[in-house]
Amino acid sequence: MYWFIERHREDTGFLIGARMVHTYQSAFQTIAVLETETWGRVLVIDGLVQMTDRDEFIYHEMIAHVPVMLHPDPHRVLVVGGGDGGTVRELLRHPEVRDIVLCEIDPKVVEVVRTHWPEMRSVFEDHRVTVVHTDGSQYMQRVTEQFDLVIVDSSDPVSYSRSLFNSHFLQAVYRALRPGGIYVTQCMSPIHHLEFIRGFLQQARRAFPVVRTYTAPAPTYPGGWWNFVIACKDRPFPEGFAPMAHDAHFLEFTRYYNLEIHRQAFAVPNFLAKELAYAS
Amino acid sequence: MYWFIERHREDTGFLIGARMVHTYQSAFQTIAVLETETWGRVLVIDGLVQMTDRDEFIYHEMIAHVPVMLHPDPHRVLVVGGGDGGTVRELLRHPEVRDIVLCEIDPKVVEVVRTHWPEMRSVFEDHRVTVVHTDGSQYMQRVTEQFDLVIVDSSDPVSYSRSLFNSHFLQAVYRALRPGGIYVTQCMSPIHHLEFIRGFLQQARRAFPVVRTYTAPAPTYPGGWWNFVIACKDRPFPEGFAPMAHDAHFLEFTRYYNLEIHRQAFAVPNFLAKELAYAS
Repeated sequence: MYWFIERHREDTGFLIGARMVHTYQSAFQTIAVLETETWGRVLVIDGLVQMTDRDEFIYHEMIAHVPVMLHPDPHRVLVVGGGDGGTVRELLRHPEVRDIVLCEIDPKVVEVVRTHWPEMRSVFEDHRVTVVHTDGSQYMQRVTEQFDLVIVDSSDPVSYSRSLFNSHFLQAVYRALRPGGIYVTQCMSPIHHLEFIRGFLQQARRAFPVVRTYTAPAPTYPGGWWNFVIACKDRPFPEGFAPMAHDAHFLEFTRYYNLEIHRQAFAVPNFLAKELAYAS
Repeated sequence: MYWFIERHREDTGFLIGARMVHTYQSAFQTIAVLETETWGRVLVIDGLVQMTDRDEFIYHEMIAHVPVMLHPDPHRVLVVGGGDGGTVRELLRHPEVRDIVLCEIDPKVVEVVRTHWPEMRSVFEDHRVTVVHTDGSQYMQRVTEQFDLVIVDSSDPVSYSRSLFNSHFLQAVYRALRPGGIYVTQCMSPIHHLEFIRGFLQQARRAFPVVRTYTAPAPTYPGGWWNFVIACKDRPFPEGFAPMAHDAHFLEFTRYYNLEIHRQAFAVPNFLAKELAYAS
């Protein structure tokens, strides 16, 4: 067995034993695919687990279906990052979503995923999907089209992804949203990165009138529990974050998400409410 | 640094680096206390993390306050296991709870906790608390008093705790509950122990008319996400699992639990609903 260790902190780590390890070097980062018994295939970028076959559905369903279901007409969607295809796969389950731009900086990520996750190829090849390999923050500054949803499904805010979590980027997202548009980003672990979340929320509140957080289990991410930040361009979220009436056919395919889970994800534990200075 | 590794599976582990390690051997098990930077003090029994200063509040609040708030008059409570004192500490926040029996098989656990967690001493010494050092399943068979709540806060169903998860024990719990009584048990990881949860639920449904599950994040337990099974002796749970109107003063002290979190914990993800054959 080949032991991969992800250091969540100086004194904390997560160990996965792999039968086989495939590593790749791109212009941007090192990419690895582990073949494991418990987790199936595991995608690792710069030493951090990005997705595993066993648990990726939770994260991808929650970053995709929550914003879709909070928008009355989620026609056009931009995904920044997300080169593993999971978020786009979930978005494609919605007939309301007619146009997706996937802006993944590193073509090698898509290539590796196409090789080791052949079932994901149809996602990248779907006629509704345009794949662009550019730096997300540069794309955001230049883009002239507008979107109903902007979803930042990036790696953690170290290295290249740092520029996806600053006020410059947030202002560009705001501009690139159509009226009523919604922005979501993965936003780290409430257990390990509370300071980061607090700082980022302050920035987001300066750029957007309505900002909230929601959470979901994340078995292979630090702390086992993940935070998302969601913001709306110009209207409050529906009472109780109630999902909109869309075609509900996708619910037959989701393994974590359902309408009850959607609402519950917005419940804020006391320590988070205090830390994040929630007025709610 | 002294590295402690908990093997969640053959090929999966959780690593904690400790400044100091104190180990003890009791008649039943090995007990260790790690002093760590990230997690504070960590209690380990037979190689499995039981609680850490950083995250124990989530588990203990959720195993204690949920059943208390679903019972109209939670007067008398039995805690089986729970030698670390965390569950009893939370129960004592409720003036409605007037009498707690803590049935912890191993006096050494309480002794170690009293040594390394001196702030927990007042819990064991509270006039409402009676500590009994007996095997929980034997206690359950013999007990003639009845309880409003029975909370099984045990280690995982290997070794001594196995007898707290069979039909014999469940029937004894049923008998030991007063009319309207509620039973809760910790019940493993939805990510790693789905087979176990499924089997246990089948047993619980034979012993109790109303059985449900709820979940909470558990950063230092396998899968980072934990399942609880809750059952009611003879009445359905209130609509939407709505909390009862009790003295709400305890909500000033909880760090995870609040009334919104209480309700949301009962949302069942699709894969669990399917696996657990929920009719809901």
